[in-house]
Order: sequence, then structure tokens, then C-alpha cells
Amino acid sequence: MQAKLSDLGMRQRPSDITRLMTFALEQPNMLSLAAGFTDNESLPIEDVREIVEEIADSGAMGKTTLQYGANKGRDRLRSLLAKRIRSFDTIDESHLDEKNLFISNGSQQALYLAIQTLCDPGDFVLVEQPTYFVFLEILQGFGVNALAMPMREDGEIDLAGLERLLSQFESEGNLDKVKALYLVSYFSNPSGHCVSEKVKSDIGSLLSRQKEPIAVIEDAAYRELYYENPFDSRSGLALESFNHLPVLYTSTLTKPYASGLKVGYSYCSDTNWLNSMLNVKGQQDFGTANFAQAIVEYALASGRFDAHLNSLRGLYKSKMLTLHESLGESLKSLGWKWEEPAGGLYLWLKSPNGMRTDGESPFHNSCIENGVFYVPGNLCFSGNEDRSQIRLSFGSLNLEDIREAALRFVAAAGSMTDSAIA
Amino acid sequence: MQAKLSDLGMRQRPSDITRLMTFALEQPNMLSLAAGFTDNESLPIEDVREIVEEIADSGAMGKTTLQYGANKGRDRLRSLLAKRIRSFDTIDESHLDEKNLFISNGSQQALYLAIQTLCDPGDFVLVEQPTYFVFLEILQGFGVNALAMPMREDGEIDLAGLERLLSQFESEGNLDKVKALYLVSYFSNPSGHCVSEKVKSDIGSLLSRQKEPIAVIEDAAYRELYYENPFDSRSGLALESFNHLPVLYTSTLTKPYASGLKVGYSYCSDTNWLNSMLNVKGQQDFGTANFAQAIVEYALASGRFDAHLNSLRGLYKSKMLTLHESLGESLKSLGWKWEEPAGGLYLWLKSPNGMRTDGESPFHNSCIENGVFYVPGNLCFSGNEDRSQIRLSFGSLNLEDIREAALRFVAAAGSMTDSAIA
Repeated sequence: MQAKLSDLGMRQRPSDITRLMTFALEQPNMLSLAAGFTDNESLPIEDVREIVEEIADSGAMGKTTLQYGANKGRDRLRSLLAKRIRSFDTIDESHLDEKNLFISNGSQQALYLAIQTLCDPGDFVLVEQPTYFVFLEILQGFGVNALAMPMREDGEIDLAGLERLLSQFESEGNLDKVKALYLVSYFSNPSGHCVSEKVKSDIGSLLSRQKEPIAVIEDAAYRELYYENPFDSRSGLALESFNHLPVLYTSTLTKPYASGLKVGYSYCSDTNWLNSMLNVKGQQDFGTANFAQAIVEYALASGRFDAHLNSLRGLYKSKMLTLHESLGESLKSLGWKWEEPAGGLYLWLKSPNGMRTDGESPFHNSCIENGVFYVPGNLCFSGNEDRSQIRLSFGSLNLEDIREAALRFVAAAGSMTDSAIA
Repeated sequence: MQAKLSDLGMRQRPSDITRLMTFALEQPNMLSLAAGFTDNESLPIEDVREIVEEIADSGAMGKTTLQYGANKGRDRLRSLLAKRIRSFDTIDESHLDEKNLFISNGSQQALYLAIQTLCDPGDFVLVEQPTYFVFLEILQGFGVNALAMPMREDGEIDLAGLERLLSQFESEGNLDKVKALYLVSYFSNPSGHCVSEKVKSDIGSLLSRQKEPIAVIEDAAYRELYYENPFDSRSGLALESFNHLPVLYTSTLTKPYASGLKVGYSYCSDTNWLNSMLNVKGQQDFGTANFAQAIVEYALASGRFDAHLNSLRGLYKSKMLTLHESLGESLKSLGWKWEEPAGGLYLWLKSPNGMRTDGESPFHNSCIENGVFYVPGNLCFSGNEDRSQIRLSFGSLNLEDIREAALRFVAAAGSMTDSAIA
């Protein structure tokens, strides 16, 4: 039931990502390890200048980049992106072409459309622990329940546990309410974890055995942001066990190039689902800004995209190492734990002895007093149940600020008394 | 109830605008007077080239146009747009500032967010006849009923009739289901009609007297696309009778400048409603592409936007006159009727003797056979009830093609036998 106008503010929990981003943007002296912004200094403005020159010089064709485009996105861009997925996943052209690929306002919009078209209020979507916290907000916005999958110590999904969970839903007659499984499969936001091909393949088999169709939403937003080598797992689109499942594979040109262009792309294996998402997109905006699409299309076609991305990989590796080493032994000696990721924009830290790190905790306040800001890990759990973890983003700060932010973080950690820890 | 995956395609009526645009894009020999595309030849690619130069030359500041921005939109852009509304409506700064103004993916997204946050399935939204047909699709997508307002012969809302309609809802205990009134108030898509300030003000008074809050969504997308002079009516934001109503005023920088940038803006007088829309926007995309916003911001600030718009006004006037005169006496002698608009991108035609013009009619087929395409007017009525009108768009074709399209249209009209007309 929609609220009355006077109560409208209560309909939706204020978006955490929006609040964090706004907070970060409004506090220039705060060093934010929170928002998932990308590196400022490397933003490819010279690329974009050249591309716009090229577009402008190409006459009538070029002008039409400023015209409306098709709801699904630009043809050449979609074709380039289908080719890109095929090359990552070694898929034959006959098994993956651009007709099922569409462009969205970042991959965010695709996640939103996926849930909007699949789910009713009261439905369930299976999620990893931890998972992308804005996805949890989308679910909540639609009144859909995030259903935490049991996880193994190594961060992989516990398949036996997942099977038991699904059996339980089946025996209760509620399996038809489980609409999708959401997987952040490469250098996860927030944990940096990658899902192995074996586990992914087993998930496909398990879902294929169910009596109700369960879709897979594979979020590969960080797939290309590896530091040295791509993670050695094909996507669900290439796995035989996924052949009869509805799959939405979604990724973005935003994080690995220029977030201000906000161009995401998705491949959907189920044509009905795809058409349903496109119908809603037609109502939301009838097509992502054509000019932004044209810029990334030219960047991809000319090789500028890959050249830039290559240099970003080295940059983010050095940023990660700087944060990792600046936190270093001093933080570890206080009992904090984390692993060095092989890609992505985040470190995922566990506090000593389960010390609380949520937004209302003494530690969070101490960080703010010390001038450093982070994402409380509990936001990445379906029921906020784990209050002892933290996502640190090293995407946007420069190396000097990362060092300073790490110092502040360590100072806050060092200031915690035993009572706060207990 | 959401459908099963296998039925997903049925959840949403295929979007007419999407279908029409796709159709127009795929048939290069067809002359389309259907899709609301803007003029191709005048697209401001040189402006954009210069602006991108300027942005690139401005160093670190410029680079950040390629970074994520705030969910609500760029501060300077929002401030420029608030100033723009104030100057159109002679409103004091203290009564309209940018804090209640936000940027969206075209004004389309704002319309979508407005309905998504206001309405439950089964609710009602008051609409003009005819009205913007994509808005009707949005309502249908959310299961909301479009409630046709009684109209006068001159195209204005029949206020006495509207009052009776609201009384009827009240006496039936359903007034709380009437959530909003949607008004395309300047050079309407599709009819070219403008709502007079007197009628607008009376609408405000009537709604203010109701026992339940009814929001006003004022769609001013074509307000600046007048040919000679602005239409002499302030928006609802400036009218005293609107003071206690929740008002969303929405417009766009897309139609009057470069549709490929897709930047719309809205002012919402109700802070709860505004926050609710922004929360959902945060989930859909957390902010419109920053780079596209930056381009229109620089265009506005440098005067390029207004210079371009000024030249567009003359261009669209000559396009309108070309279509108007090419249809001319030959079509009028067949009994067709229409008026010359003072702004916008459309002629709104009435067929002789109520001859059907809908997508399944002999006349529609005859037009397609003759190589010309239009928007059937019935799509612009809440129940498709009027099947004798047509929207012709002269936005995208050049003058020569407009003349040729008009010839084809007149030929199709001339080929209709009396039986088709009856």
C-alpha cells in the first residue's frame, strides 16, 4: 500500500549509497574510504576530447550521436560488447549474439529492471554473504526478501547448505517464491572474492534440478578490473549447467573507464525476461543517453578503452598495495584481518574479537572523529547480522591520501579500549 | 502478481513508443511523421566539441566530469535551472531554490518516478484527452488507471465536469485513490494545446478544496519550444492556488538542445515526495550521467544553449509551416481538420466523419503502403476511445522529406473510399 503524500518519505529507507556519497561529497576534509568512486586523476579526458573531435569531424553521422537512439542501445556498441563477452568466455558467435544484449544506465539499472520484472513483494532472492549493498536496497525497495545463502569459510557458497535451504522452501510449498540467485562473481564488491568455475557450475546444476525456474543474475561489474590476470573462470553464459536457466549477465563500462558516462551492458539468455526488462526501460527513459554510449563505443572500437584499462590495472594495484601496506603490521597487531585481493577496488576487513563497526558503533564514531570514513560491513549482509566487518575503498583517493587515511584508520583502531572491543 | 519466467513477456504491453521508434529506425525508406525525434541537421555538435575542449582544458576540475556525481545532479546545473524557472515564472529566489530541484534521465524518468512513488495498483491519475501516450504506458505498467478528464471543445479541461467527476469519486468513497492530475501544459504532445493560466489556476483551487491530497504533475517539456513568443501562462509553481498542493514541475534539456544527452530536470514542492523519488532514483542509477549533465551545464552557462534554442525556434516554425502548407488545401478539401500550433513538434489532425486512423485501420495501412508513418491518435486517449485523430511529427525530417511525406499522406487520404470513411 502506497503511503499518503504526507508520509511519502517513509516509503523507502533512505538509500545508504546515496547518503554515503552525499556525505563524502559534502565533507572535503574527510578522507573517504567509503564511496566506490573511481580514480580522479586518471579519468580519460584526453581520450574523450579526441573521440568528440572524431565524432564532430565525421559529419552527419557524428551529429546523430546527439539524437535519440534505440531503447536497447547503439547497434555497433552492442555488437562490440557481445564480441567482448564471447572472447572472455570462449563462446561461439552462434551461441551469443547481440540480439539479447542491451545497454543500461550503468549496470545498476539492469539490476533494478531484473528485480522489478521478476519479483513480487514477498518473493525471495538468494544472495551471498556479504553482497553488494545497493542490491539489498533494491530488493528492499520492492519488498523482496534477501535470502542469505550459507557460505563456506573460504568465501564460496556452501552448496550442500544451499541445497538444504531450497529443499526446505520446497517442502514448505514456497519454492515458487524463490525467483533468482544473485552472484557477484568477480572481485566482489565488497569482499574482493571471486566465484570459482567449479562452484559456479555446481550452482547451475543445483538450480537446474529445482522444480521451479530460478534465474541467475551474475554481476560481473569488476571482472575487467583485475591487477595482473583475469580470474580464471568463465561466466555462467558459457557453462553447460546454465544452459536451461534464465541468466542475466551484467557488467559496466563505467568502473573500468569513466564513471561519469554511466553506460552498463547486460546479456539476457531468456527472451521473455529480456523483453519485459526492455519494456520497463522504455517507460523509464526509452534508451540510455546516446552520446555517452557513442563515446564508449568509439573508445572500444579504437582500442583506447583497453589501453586505458590496462593502465588503470597497474594504478589500482598500486593503490591497493598502498592501503594494504599502510594498514599493515600495525593494524594486524591489533587483531584485524583481511586478505590482499587480486582485483577490484576494495579491502574487506574483519575487526578483532567481533568488535562492532556499524554506523552506530564507537569505532565508527572514532573514525569520523579521526577524519576517515568507511562502509560498515553490516550493510552488506541481508539482515545486518555481521557487525564486525568493513569495506575500505581505495578507488578515488590518491596515494598520499590513502596513506593518510590508513594512518587515521589505524589511529582509530588503536584508540579502542578493550571494553569497546568486547 | 508477477508472472512466471516463461510468461514474463506478457507482464507489460509492448511499449508503443519503443515499437514506433524501432520501426522508424529500421525502415530507412519509410518517411516517419511518427517518432518524436528532433531535427538531425541542427544538432549542436560544434557546441559540444567546444564545450568538451573547454572542459578538457580546465584540468582537474574538468576531469571530474567523468567521475560519478551526486544522485540529485550537479550543483551548478541545478542552480542554473532553478534560476531559469524563476525567470520564466517571475518567482522570488526565496520561494524556489535548487534544493528541491533534481536531474533525471530525461523528463521521462521523472514522470516514471512520480507515479512509482505516488501510486498503488488500482489508483487513479487524472489525464487530459488527448495526453502524452508514453505517460499512459507508465500508468498501465504500474496497474494505475488513467482517468480521463472531461474536456471542452477548445481543448481546455472542463472544470465543472472535473468537479462532478471528483464528487462522484468522493461519494463512492474512492477519492483517496485519485493520486494525481497530469497536465501537459505547454504546446502539448500530441495536440499542441497550451493550458491557460486561468484554467490552471482554477484547477489549483478545485484540487485544494478536495478532502484528499491530489498532486499535480506539470509536464512542461515543450515550454521553451515556442516559435515566436512564450505561451503567456506561468507554471503551477507560481500560482497561489497551487500553494498547498504537492507539485512536480518537470521539463527537459533534451528536446530543446540535444536529445542524445538525455538530461531532464524537475522541481518538486513536496519534500517528502521529492525524497521518495530520489531514494528510488538512487536504486535505479544513483545519478544521471555526470558528463552529459556537465555538457548542458556548460551550454547553459555560456549562453550556447539559448543561442541554439533561438535558432531551433525558427527552424521548427518553418518545418511546421512546411508540413501545414504541404498538407494544405488538398487535405482540408477531403474534410480533415487541424490547427496551426504556436510551438512544439506536432500537428494534431482529425479525420473526416470520424474515419478510423488506428493501427488496424485501412487508412493506417494505406499510409504504410504509401511510405509514410504516423502515431495513431487513439494511443493518446486513456481508453483508446477516439479512433479518428492523428499525431504528425515534423521534428526529424528535413523540409524536402516533410513535403514528400505530406504528399504521401494526402495520397493515402485521397485513396480512402467512402466505405472506409463511414
